[in-house]
Amino acid sequence: MRKEELNFTTVEQMEADTVRLCELADEAGAETWQKRKEQQQPQCKFGEQGICCRICSMGPCRVTPKADRGICGADAHAIAGRHYLRMAAAGSASHSDHAREMAHALLKSNPDSQFNIRDEAKLMRIAAEWGIESEGRDLYDVAHDVALHGLNEFGKPFGTLDCLKRATDERQKVWADQEIEPRAIDREVCTSLHMTHMGNTADAPTLVRQSLRVGMADGWGGSMIGTDFSDILFGTPTARATEGNLGVLENDMVNIVVHGHDPAFSEMMVLASETKEMQDYAREKGAKGINMAGLCCTANEVAMRHGVRMVGNFLQQENAVLTGAIEMMCVDVQCIFPALGPLTDCFHTIFVTSSPIARIPGSKYVKFETETAFEQAKTLVAEAIDNFANRDSKKVFIPEHKEAAAVGYPCEQIILELDGVTNSHGVLTVNGEKEERGSYKPAIDAIRAGVLRGAVAMVGCNNPKVRPDFSHIDIMRTLMEHDILVVTTGCAAQAAAKAGLMSKEAKELCGDGLKRVCTLVGIPPILHMGACVDISRMMLLATGIAKDWDVDITKIPVVGCAPEWMSEKAVAIANYVVATGLDVYLGIQPQVHGSEQMIQLITEGTREISGAGYTINTDPDELVKAIIEGIEAKRKLLDI
Amino acid sequence: MRKEELNFTTVEQMEADTVRLCELADEAGAETWQKRKEQQQPQCKFGEQGICCRICSMGPCRVTPKADRGICGADAHAIAGRHYLRMAAAGSASHSDHAREMAHALLKSNPDSQFNIRDEAKLMRIAAEWGIESEGRDLYDVAHDVALHGLNEFGKPFGTLDCLKRATDERQKVWADQEIEPRAIDREVCTSLHMTHMGNTADAPTLVRQSLRVGMADGWGGSMIGTDFSDILFGTPTARATEGNLGVLENDMVNIVVHGHDPAFSEMMVLASETKEMQDYAREKGAKGINMAGLCCTANEVAMRHGVRMVGNFLQQENAVLTGAIEMMCVDVQCIFPALGPLTDCFHTIFVTSSPIARIPGSKYVKFETETAFEQAKTLVAEAIDNFANRDSKKVFIPEHKEAAAVGYPCEQIILELDGVTNSHGVLTVNGEKEERGSYKPAIDAIRAGVLRGAVAMVGCNNPKVRPDFSHIDIMRTLMEHDILVVTTGCAAQAAAKAGLMSKEAKELCGDGLKRVCTLVGIPPILHMGACVDISRMMLLATGIAKDWDVDITKIPVVGCAPEWMSEKAVAIANYVVATGLDVYLGIQPQVHGSEQMIQLITEGTREISGAGYTINTDPDELVKAIIEGIEAKRKLLDI
Repeated sequence: MRKEELNFTTVEQMEADTVRLCELADEAGAETWQKRKEQQQPQCKFGEQGICCRICSMGPCRVTPKADRGICGADAHAIAGRHYLRMAAAGSASHSDHAREMAHALLKSNPDSQFNIRDEAKLMRIAAEWGIESEGRDLYDVAHDVALHGLNEFGKPFGTLDCLKRATDERQKVWADQEIEPRAIDREVCTSLHMTHMGNTADAPTLVRQSLRVGMADGWGGSMIGTDFSDILFGTPTARATEGNLGVLENDMVNIVVHGHDPAFSEMMVLASETKEMQDYAREKGAKGINMAGLCCTANEVAMRHGVRMVGNFLQQENAVLTGAIEMMCVDVQCIFPALGPLTDCFHTIFVTSSPIARIPGSKYVKFETETAFEQAKTLVAEAIDNFANRDSKKVFIPEHKEAAAVGYPCEQIILELDGVTNSHGVLTVNGEKEERGSYKPAIDAIRAGVLRGAVAMVGCNNPKVRPDFSHIDIMRTLMEHDILVVTTGCAAQAAAKAGLMSKEAKELCGDGLKRVCTLVGIPPILHMGACVDISRMMLLATGIAKDWDVDITKIPVVGCAPEWMSEKAVAIANYVVATGLDVYLGIQPQVHGSEQMIQLITEGTREISGAGYTINTDPDELVKAIIEGIEAKRKLLDI
Repeated sequence: MRKEELNFTTVEQMEADTVRLCELADEAGAETWQKRKEQQQPQCKFGEQGICCRICSMGPCRVTPKADRGICGADAHAIAGRHYLRMAAAGSASHSDHAREMAHALLKSNPDSQFNIRDEAKLMRIAAEWGIESEGRDLYDVAHDVALHGLNEFGKPFGTLDCLKRATDERQKVWADQEIEPRAIDREVCTSLHMTHMGNTADAPTLVRQSLRVGMADGWGGSMIGTDFSDILFGTPTARATEGNLGVLENDMVNIVVHGHDPAFSEMMVLASETKEMQDYAREKGAKGINMAGLCCTANEVAMRHGVRMVGNFLQQENAVLTGAIEMMCVDVQCIFPALGPLTDCFHTIFVTSSPIARIPGSKYVKFETETAFEQAKTLVAEAIDNFANRDSKKVFIPEHKEAAAVGYPCEQIILELDGVTNSHGVLTVNGEKEERGSYKPAIDAIRAGVLRGAVAMVGCNNPKVRPDFSHIDIMRTLMEHDILVVTTGCAAQAAAKAGLMSKEAKELCGDGLKRVCTLVGIPPILHMGACVDISRMMLLATGIAKDWDVDITKIPVVGCAPEWMSEKAVAIANYVVATGLDVYLGIQPQVHGSEQMIQLITEGTREISGAGYTINTDPDELVKAIIEGIEAKRKLLDI
């Protein structure tokens, strides 16, 4: 297939679908984010610049030309820095609390329930890493000890996080020297809140340093544990085919959408929907079957493990409901629009919340419990099936667009794919040496040879401050053309899926080098690594490359990019990626630019701490140009 | 002495001193909060009403007549509720992190250091309560086990807080039934951040319920442990005489002010200043000696344990520097104006920060370590002495006002005072029964007899939104006139001290009943219970009264009042006081009044959960009227 024959969905086509769905919203009396965004203009400039403080009730205070300090004397740098640290802390708390739920689920795992051990090898590897005896012991006793050890990482009174030891020696030394090794996960969050309480730290460099530390408590703590435990319980993802975009909804099937982040609930929903009992029941009720679809990071979780199709990403959650074809939307935690309450009221869609963490007015609340999870899921699926009869066909509009996507490339799968080409294709072993299996060396060789120029981790949300999905897709296409491999998670991954970029055919859009790699290895040019919590996988990938290459992680031509980030989790992530030594390119301004010192600290200052920093540019073309220059600069320093 | 002969400092006199100090600030080119407050006008109405959201970078969003929801669909109730919960969480994190420091200090205690066991009985009582073996064991082994047990309360993966068992059975049942028993302290903080992350809880009742829970993690967790461990290490406070207000500074002595909250640092400073070596050195340098004075809650800590005099409260921190007579201001954590950096630059005052939690530009940072604390303190005291020579007498203005105060009435001291009158004075045993010693029964009898109408816990900060100290003093004087006993902590206590209300002579300002009680028991009408962290003592006092009286805590005529609160800690406190079943009267609006639902929930809704709620009124005269009516209504329900 040639480039010009590829007919992937364009952003313009997606936007046309959205326009039509917004018209249907108007007809249904429903409100969408597009309208609310309009109503919110102009947005508060003080808040955008991070120079508004609401930390005590003497305030609110704001820095203005006539007032350069708040009532307590906090200046723009303190105010912006404190808010920035609080965002990182809240993000870290959120990712990590999700991980805590996984740890409790692992603790309750047993062979007779749906919460059983699906990746024994990973369990054993982690047990060994954490010094937990496994020989001759019952698998579940080991699992429960691993879960307890994981839970202890949240609250242990002494020491630093165990997962830090997975990093390169160089990184561990940097973290120790810079005193940014996180202690217990929850403690770093609480310390961050304490530091930013009225009358505490007003020194921006200290606030930025703690942001790195609390970010690390996420990336090398909560998120890493969350990912590992999800893999143990639900299986480490493997490569599989799926599809993405609103076109995955089916006119003649019961459509159930799972949305959120925590995979425990969505796993049960998927398993329940696959039972013969439920499939039969759906047919009995006049549907051709049950069509499970995922949204946001929950989509990534179930796509990677079950091939469940992805109906969309963050800013598409309302669109999904507006199709009028969804019988039930089941959510767990994070990034759920409260707007789904009133919105689903305009349609037959049942809106189910399942977590005490995310109680939302206008939803049916079913408190999800590990012990009864599968039965609860079956009851919900049956209810969705019953609701099929209530679908109003006059209100149904399912846009046709959808694209094929190859998903499921965690580190283990990447290694497996690379093993497939080791010693068989000279192009990947340019130095002629005999390559070991089970390493990243074939990829490193390709980078050293220049066949690949480097890699970019494309991550993050959507944000109405920019054209939704455009930055993701635009940047990824440019990177592909420049022989830069992309790994992706979260809403960035779904943007790629919607645009066909995660399909194997997308190699036709790539430069010659990347295309050759994709052909030889049999991979798409954009490798799907999972949900936003799985950015921890990317840290291990970069660490693995640095180790196998035997160069400092700051030197490898690998960077991160979040062109449309929106949430506090993204702030935590950006901090741990920088702390890990990888540059981060942001397409949305962090809300600190009312402080020159803060901008200097996050773009340059951190380079003296961790060897990495942010580049911020809201123009995607300029941002991708900076990325490519950054990668080429790293290559030059490596003399490759 | 008759009422008209009392010549206590009036608020007007204090204000006149402040005016003079502000003039001196102008002369010195220094800025004060009064000027910054002026520059901050008008303050943002959206922030004041709690309907501005900066939780994700799609925002800032605000609720306006044309926009009733943020971009994600969060309405005024969700936005205000989330901010409110975050304030409670940050407050709880701060108090509790202070307690964590105390626990680590206790863990390092040893008989040969300044960190030794000064209240063995309390240590043994807590060891027994927590099931820690003490018989035949080395005192310090027990102390270290108690410290470890305390540290575990921050991060234990299972169960609820151990201190909850100190409450009445009725309270424990309410907390369990309402599912607001806090789990590990840090976990409740993290859960609160998670719940308020973008796309999680948007349901105001759920947010209010979690506010109670995370508040409890402070009051019945962090704060309670912090207070206990401080008592073990530095001694449980006992009644002693001191003085309060700027007049405690001495013209011919080296003035050192300790400011903040964590007693560990200030204790060492006090001990160091009392050494013969330092006293001699001060005389050698031409001073008559060393005058230690306290500010904010640190003042309460050292006043109660050493009689150190109190130079002022929160909004007086700049005034203290403006006297030009302070050689050194040493701060630990919380409520430190960042303004002290530039302000002390205008004077010879050395501004010392000591905690990684509170790094402030313009300060000399001496990282305080338990192991080297005493030596560090001596070095600092010597440096302050050296700085005496740099005092510029032309810049010195020490206002003359100061008042005597009787301080140091923790629960143990109150019981001791009551024991002194048991069975000896009929007025306190109206029912003629033989009273046990070691109980609150004499006080209960006085309340039942109507000699005392009830008690009010006066707590909280200052806030420039109201006339500083005026509400505190005005309300306390009215309560005293109405035979209502006051217990107090924090900046409220210092306001009372400055106005002479904590002196024993202040009984002359009281109604006949309270005056008789003060005379008989030999106490002032306002009992000083400590720092804001010691409001946990008040919870135990109210619990003890409810137990000894054998009525539900919600029924006793005891309430809380924070007329000038400012910090997030105050939000945590207000929540745990309400959760404990005691009504709270607030003189500053919580920043939620843009949401009718939130106002309803915090003033009425919580009554269905815990049996208590807020009354909010920014007019101190109306607020105290409401308090008195509330107390009389409780009496009526008790039929007394």
